[in-house]
Amino acid sequence: MNLNIVLFQPEIPQNTGNIGRTCVLTNCKLHLIKPLGFSLDEKAVKRCGLDYWPLLDLEIHESYEALREKYKESNFYFCTTKATKYYHEAEFKEGDFLVFGRESSGLPDYIRQENKETLIKVPMIDTTERSLNLSNTVAIIAYEGLRQLGFKHMK
Amino acid sequence: MNLNIVLFQPEIPQNTGNIGRTCVLTNCKLHLIKPLGFSLDEKAVKRCGLDYWPLLDLEIHESYEALREKYKESNFYFCTTKATKYYHEAEFKEGDFLVFGRESSGLPDYIRQENKETLIKVPMIDTTERSLNLSNTVAIIAYEGLRQLGFKHMK
Repeated sequence: MNLNIVLFQPEIPQNTGNIGRTCVLTNCKLHLIKPLGFSLDEKAVKRCGLDYWPLLDLEIHESYEALREKYKESNFYFCTTKATKYYHEAEFKEGDFLVFGRESSGLPDYIRQENKETLIKVPMIDTTERSLNLSNTVAIIAYEGLRQLGFKHMK
Repeated sequence: MNLNIVLFQPEIPQNTGNIGRTCVLTNCKLHLIKPLGFSLDEKAVKRCGLDYWPLLDLEIHESYEALREKYKESNFYFCTTKATKYYHEAEFKEGDFLVFGRESSGLPDYIRQENKETLIKVPMIDTTERSLNLSNTVAIIAYEGLRQLGFKHMK
């Protein structure tokens, strides 16, 4: 396994679908923190054409606290537009966790406050209120991590 | 302007929408090669909630040949799963063109044949027929280019 991708209460199923696809294709594990803004039952997954979903290494967590409790020893990075450090300045290690906030509102304040030293962001032009699409942000940061790790078993 | 992103006959409007957003946020120019699989008139753009669309530096080309004719002096890279060189091995320069194929069928054979030396790919695990979502692929390669260029005017 390369990296762990964590989505905190994701809202838009297409984003989670695309991120799942990225995880399958990069040997990353996907963690989803409840509540989810959509159903992940077999019918819903089939209807969305997520044919790669059975290949996904997926873990669903009741809460952010449950996830942290389970992976006490791991390194966590938190991806937020409110960081001061850039994603490409981080030194990613195998098994690191990358946490991404909700599409509408990002990560809650208390999570950012508790993890000030490990907030990272993707640089952008400052012309609009908008930021990058969530699945694009995940792809950019995950691939920088994978690049640093030497793209193991990928070709 | 940082880089030029070219979509060859894109089919899925959500992908082009997300890629347009990435271009706005990175000061990249978006080029679309006709035919498009969707409408880009004002009504359609509004209906899709593309509020950032007016900020996009967009050029639409009648054909691939018309694009190449217009930008004779520029460096072109072609992103395809059939490349042997990896995207992070390329040395991107300001103003380079990154060309991406159709969602369903990628770039046509004749374009790949004519540009064998500048085909690049994103490494993936070899477990499924699927490849990365188009907008994710664009984001990954564009951000590697931007990283190499020092993320000018981005913060």
